[in-house]
Amino acid sequence: MCRIRGENLLVKAAVMNGPFKPIEIRDFPVPKLEHGAILLKTIASEICGTDLHLFKGHLPEVPYPIIPGHVSVGIVESINGEVIDLTGKTIDKGDTITFLDVNETCNNCWYCLVAKTPTKCPHRKVYGITYSAKKPPHLLGGWAEHIYLKPGVKIIKIHDDIEPLSFMAGGCALPTAIHAIDKANIRFGDTIAIQGCGPVGLWLTVIAKFSGAFKVILLGSPSLRLEFGKKIGSDLTIDIKDLRPKERVNKILDMSEGRGADVTIEATGTPNAILEGLEMTRDGGKYIILGQYTNVGDVEINPHVHINKKHLEIKGVWGTDFSHLYRAVDFLSIIQKRIPLDEFITNICSIEDAQKNLEAVERLTTIKTIIKP
Amino acid sequence: MCRIRGENLLVKAAVMNGPFKPIEIRDFPVPKLEHGAILLKTIASEICGTDLHLFKGHLPEVPYPIIPGHVSVGIVESINGEVIDLTGKTIDKGDTITFLDVNETCNNCWYCLVAKTPTKCPHRKVYGITYSAKKPPHLLGGWAEHIYLKPGVKIIKIHDDIEPLSFMAGGCALPTAIHAIDKANIRFGDTIAIQGCGPVGLWLTVIAKFSGAFKVILLGSPSLRLEFGKKIGSDLTIDIKDLRPKERVNKILDMSEGRGADVTIEATGTPNAILEGLEMTRDGGKYIILGQYTNVGDVEINPHVHINKKHLEIKGVWGTDFSHLYRAVDFLSIIQKRIPLDEFITNICSIEDAQKNLEAVERLTTIKTIIKP
Amino acid sequence: MCRIRGENLLVKAAVMNGPFKPIEIRDFPVPKLEHGAILLKTIASEICGTDLHLFKGHLPEVPYPIIPGHVSVGIVESINGEVIDLTGKTIDKGDTITFLDVNETCNNCWYCLVAKTPTKCPHRKVYGITYSAKKPPHLLGGWAEHIYLKPGVKIIKIHDDIEPLSFMAGGCALPTAIHAIDKANIRFGDTIAIQGCGPVGLWLTVIAKFSGAFKVILLGSPSLRLEFGKKIGSDLTIDIKDLRPKERVNKILDMSEGRGADVTIEATGTPNAILEGLEMTRDGGKYIILGQYTNVGDVEINPHVHINKKHLEIKGVWGTDFSHLYRAVDFLSIIQKRIPLDEFITNICSIEDAQKNLEAVERLTTIKTIIKP
Amino acid sequence: MCRIRGENLLVKAAVMNGPFKPIEIRDFPVPKLEHGAILLKTIASEICGTDLHLFKGHLPEVPYPIIPGHVSVGIVESINGEVIDLTGKTIDKGDTITFLDVNETCNNCWYCLVAKTPTKCPHRKVYGITYSAKKPPHLLGGWAEHIYLKPGVKIIKIHDDIEPLSFMAGGCALPTAIHAIDKANIRFGDTIAIQGCGPVGLWLTVIAKFSGAFKVILLGSPSLRLEFGKKIGSDLTIDIKDLRPKERVNKILDMSEGRGADVTIEATGTPNAILEGLEMTRDGGKYIILGQYTNVGDVEINPHVHINKKHLEIKGVWGTDFSHLYRAVDFLSIIQKRIPLDEFITNICSIEDAQKNLEAVERLTTIKTIIKP
Repeated sequence: MCRIRGENLLVKAAVMNGPFKPIEIRDFPVPKLEHGAILLKTIASEICGTDLHLFKGHLPEVPYPIIPGHVSVGIVESINGEVIDLTGKTIDKGDTITFLDVNETCNNCWYCLVAKTPTKCPHRKVYGITYSAKKPPHLLGGWAEHIYLKPGVKIIKIHDDIEPLSFMAGGCALPTAIHAIDKANIRFGDTIAIQGCGPVGLWLTVIAKFSGAFKVILLGSPSLRLEFGKKIGSDLTIDIKDLRPKERVNKILDMSEGRGADVTIEATGTPNAILEGLEMTRDGGKYIILGQYTNVGDVEINPHVHINKKHLEIKGVWGTDFSHLYRAVDFLSIIQKRIPLDEFITNICSIEDAQKNLEAVERLTTIKTIIKP
Repeated sequence: MCRIRGENLLVKAAVMNGPFKPIEIRDFPVPKLEHGAILLKTIASEICGTDLHLFKGHLPEVPYPIIPGHVSVGIVESINGEVIDLTGKTIDKGDTITFLDVNETCNNCWYCLVAKTPTKCPHRKVYGITYSAKKPPHLLGGWAEHIYLKPGVKIIKIHDDIEPLSFMAGGCALPTAIHAIDKANIRFGDTIAIQGCGPVGLWLTVIAKFSGAFKVILLGSPSLRLEFGKKIGSDLTIDIKDLRPKERVNKILDMSEGRGADVTIEATGTPNAILEGLEMTRDGGKYIILGQYTNVGDVEINPHVHINKKHLEIKGVWGTDFSHLYRAVDFLSIIQKRIPLDEFITNICSIEDAQKNLEAVERLTTIKTIIKP
Repeated sequence: MCRIRGENLLVKAAVMNGPFKPIEIRDFPVPKLEHGAILLKTIASEICGTDLHLFKGHLPEVPYPIIPGHVSVGIVESINGEVIDLTGKTIDKGDTITFLDVNETCNNCWYCLVAKTPTKCPHRKVYGITYSAKKPPHLLGGWAEHIYLKPGVKIIKIHDDIEPLSFMAGGCALPTAIHAIDKANIRFGDTIAIQGCGPVGLWLTVIAKFSGAFKVILLGSPSLRLEFGKKIGSDLTIDIKDLRPKERVNKILDMSEGRGADVTIEATGTPNAILEGLEMTRDGGKYIILGQYTNVGDVEINPHVHINKKHLEIKGVWGTDFSHLYRAVDFLSIIQKRIPLDEFITNICSIEDAQKNLEAVERLTTIKTIIKP
Repeated sequence: MCRIRGENLLVKAAVMNGPFKPIEIRDFPVPKLEHGAILLKTIASEICGTDLHLFKGHLPEVPYPIIPGHVSVGIVESINGEVIDLTGKTIDKGDTITFLDVNETCNNCWYCLVAKTPTKCPHRKVYGITYSAKKPPHLLGGWAEHIYLKPGVKIIKIHDDIEPLSFMAGGCALPTAIHAIDKANIRFGDTIAIQGCGPVGLWLTVIAKFSGAFKVILLGSPSLRLEFGKKIGSDLTIDIKDLRPKERVNKILDMSEGRGADVTIEATGTPNAILEGLEMTRDGGKYIILGQYTNVGDVEINPHVHINKKHLEIKGVWGTDFSHLYRAVDFLSIIQKRIPLDEFITNICSIEDAQKNLEAVERLTTIKTIIKP
């Protein structure tokens, strides 16, 4: 798919030059592959809430210009040397693969080796977020015709039984949700409240029901997403436009004999949700805070009422690791028989239309938007 | 020790009639024992921070008038029927015992049986706090010559090798601290920061060092308590009067190669301590909130910075159960060889002097104050 | 349903007088209710593998004669005093209820209070197993027209939306399986091998799939049960009559890229299954031993190969507690929409036919046999 | 320390050519350093039980000839390029360091990334055990004047306040024991039984007491080691030559009100110890199997009596990772003030005397033997 302009092969990409600057469509040269590197022909990447944060400058130390797009799927176009996946199988030209956007986790620092918390490794980089497009190999994000996979990028072959676009139904939301579910450690029989019905909240609905929950309550807006939430398993949906916070909490109490959710998972990005989440969780329950990915403000809580007396357990969840992506790929093969994966993807656009579709993501008129070069 | 006034046997007790009302010294009749009940002759009870909260009306639904004093030690004066301890041994007249102040946990409700969180049982009562002195048997608190142990109160014989007063060095602080240490689940090698150097913070210092911590940092005030903290094991003490919050946090970072404490345990009772505690804990670490026993206000936190990005785990700890008291009794036998238990007790007073000594507890001029009828 | 013989009301029951003695049908007087006791009119009880063990004398210290039948469902016929369930609701005459067969767990001993392992409480009694029918109130097992619920027996109302017989589809197997699943702590994505396809193995299949497992492999015999296993969710069934142990293990390895099951759960009652189970579990995996309910012999293992080098975690699971039964009742309401509950019950018989049906249970020609007085 | 023979610099090493072949003293050329490699001048290495296993051919796939010695300490003699430790500090010539013997854990396979069990990584190599001395760089074991650290070997600087020989008092036993303690997850107040009083059992004694255990019982032989066990903290020592297995178990029961140890840790290398260990652990307790490092036979257990009815948790522990070594280094700085580290080392020998001292290790007449070139 590389085009020729004059004598050069060129790769088209959508570039974010800085906060609130319009997305620019640029051509980059085809990079030379280091030993162990792969050139991927992009099948699809996504526009997600994080890209909106990038556009608004909510994330610190982003090396603009960047090519956004962190979770992507593509076909191996060329490889320099031999590259294997985690089962030891050789990656071949023509394979359909995805890769872990989180890269360069060092396996050599205190966080990696002693704390065993690689998501906090200081050397960690993320495709589509913390790699600059300024210098070669440039193509370190998914909103481009090709993606350059650096040596050591962790790769998973997509199963034959699943369409690459169905994989994108999971996108970055599914591994993120899996990380939260791992932390939630749901007990058989739990009642789960999920705050936020974006792709992460929707996937949490699916996997909470798949992980032993008896009841899942989904709170959010707009109704497009909530309706889809019902279809994929929520037992009750609450439109936050219809009820005030106190009424929302009461609905949860009604569903749980007056106690509150055993586990509440926050996937909103709104600080105020925290207070409400604490209140809708039962005494001795768990509250997983996942959605506060950027700093958009403080929240006032009462440590006696909300934490100490409540005997509560609160867990912040940061990033994902390979185990989450790996299981996401397997899970999609299984769950596609039960839920309509294609309905997660409400919009498919070209690289050129990235800007317009980013705006649609902000207006919440979509569930998932996919870029297909 | 029962006195005779005219024809009646009478028991002297210090009674708290309501918030900010002066402690009253009253005589009560000797109660008739139900089947399974015990009359204890009080050796000692304590005046602790909770009693100050009771005096200031910080706790809801306290059925004043009450006889304060929740953890006590005494000698069995009479028993109606046979009472056994948890090993099946019969309790005899003359035995020196303590008992679990938390009572009537029902073992029959959702919290006891399904959630297995008996500290949140709605039927739970606490000696010295939630039993009124208005009606017979009256004597349901430790600031009295005698204590009435209702049938079913859980009893532990005090080991022969330990002085009853040494047991009071642990008092209610030690089981409370043990509950927090259970929740903290210290990993061999952890650096622990402890906020607050009252009896709970001091015991946390001792048992953190006994539970695999390599470094313990104790923060608080006044110096009397911090000095004792050094004596019983803290590797660094920080007087909060000497340093501003940011400087305190920096001290912790210096002790941990810039990362922060692996586990921070809050034992202050001050909402503002929460923000500081979150900041002094490392990414991926744990924060145990123990000291927010009453509602004394809100605190503003940033859920992105302090929880989500930090990948933090926060646990509120409420109350104690029998396992904590049981191990406290055993622990005192062991630890008395290593630390000077008697120095925990800085003040011993009579029932009549309860009011005066409660005021001293407020001024923080003491470590532990014991009432000895 | 009490019959009158002469002037007395009588209750018919099937009595096991001792190992290998024929089941005797006897009449007992209607017991007088202590305060807090309930007389239940039996709707159904079950004949399970444990009853076969009782018949063969495999269990120690059984106080024959007994009325077998530990998990039962019935209608409240009379109550002496007020009895509440765990939500505080009053139990009324005419309510359809089940009850926890495990009784008299003391909440007062070291196992209950310090170790928090009530299934090992030395005071524990079990309906249908450890209560003798010799003395009044006699009716402490389910193979009878009426069951006497002693004061303190823990009760759950059966949901209106579920047939009492559907509840018996769970019977004692479902709470037992829930206990094992709690211990297994399945991680989202695990491959689970289940040894044994009796009612417990079949329920394990259902709830493993409901608890985050991606693949469930069911091993056992005969084909009647395996076929049903396929219907309720197993991804692969292995008839142990068709393959030798080594071949069975290889099948599991094939399903897991050569590694073995992440979690294997044993529900066979055969010591030899242990060796095979250890071999089919992956390095670093978990092995839950549930089915060795009686002592039927030893097994030779290699601690280096099977445990140490394998970095394996093995957990023995003993008995059930109230939380397991409670969730079983809720679960049946949910799962009845997905699987054919009534097909669990292959045989329904009268009290008089207990003996004949016990023999059928031994021949494994049934899935579940229910006694319906 | 490299010697010159004719024109070549040579490094002396003790080489194990195969099972039961006499240790040979050989000279190797000084290896050329790859980029990222380090040449270490050996201060000390150790002769441990594993070396005896190597000598007897108990371990599979050992690529004889090898230079034994897996945990060592040395001085950096030369470095090719920049090498950093886990805190990001540059390693300099002259630094005293130790290194993780376990190497080439890939951080790229299913065990490393999905199961997060790097000790089961199939690419894992171990200095002194699984590296052959046949090919350059030859020097991949500690019984040599120099050790070649391959690029990526994980390094820790030894604290200034500790003697290199004191570090060897920990040797490979201390990180191994730390791994077991992590798995044991001791609860404050536990009674711990330790089977085996070799260096691992002795270190387990020290760190169990440091990790919240109230009582530690050490079982083993000979008396030399048991006497030292008393000195470093065991509350009771049992010489297995003095008592029969049943009597030993009874001793443990006596120490625990008839229940057995809360946690038993096996560090013997003898299959028969397993049966005894299962019996000395309380119902609902934990049994950590650490010492079955090689296959020296089977053991017959009763799965009903020892696992199922006991409600037991058994954990096999394999190998160590960096977190264990890292904490071992820190721990030695702390514990040297409380216990006589130097008394762990009963024998110090030259490379030439390796054979003789290996035989002494077999006769159990030593605690720890150190090779000092």
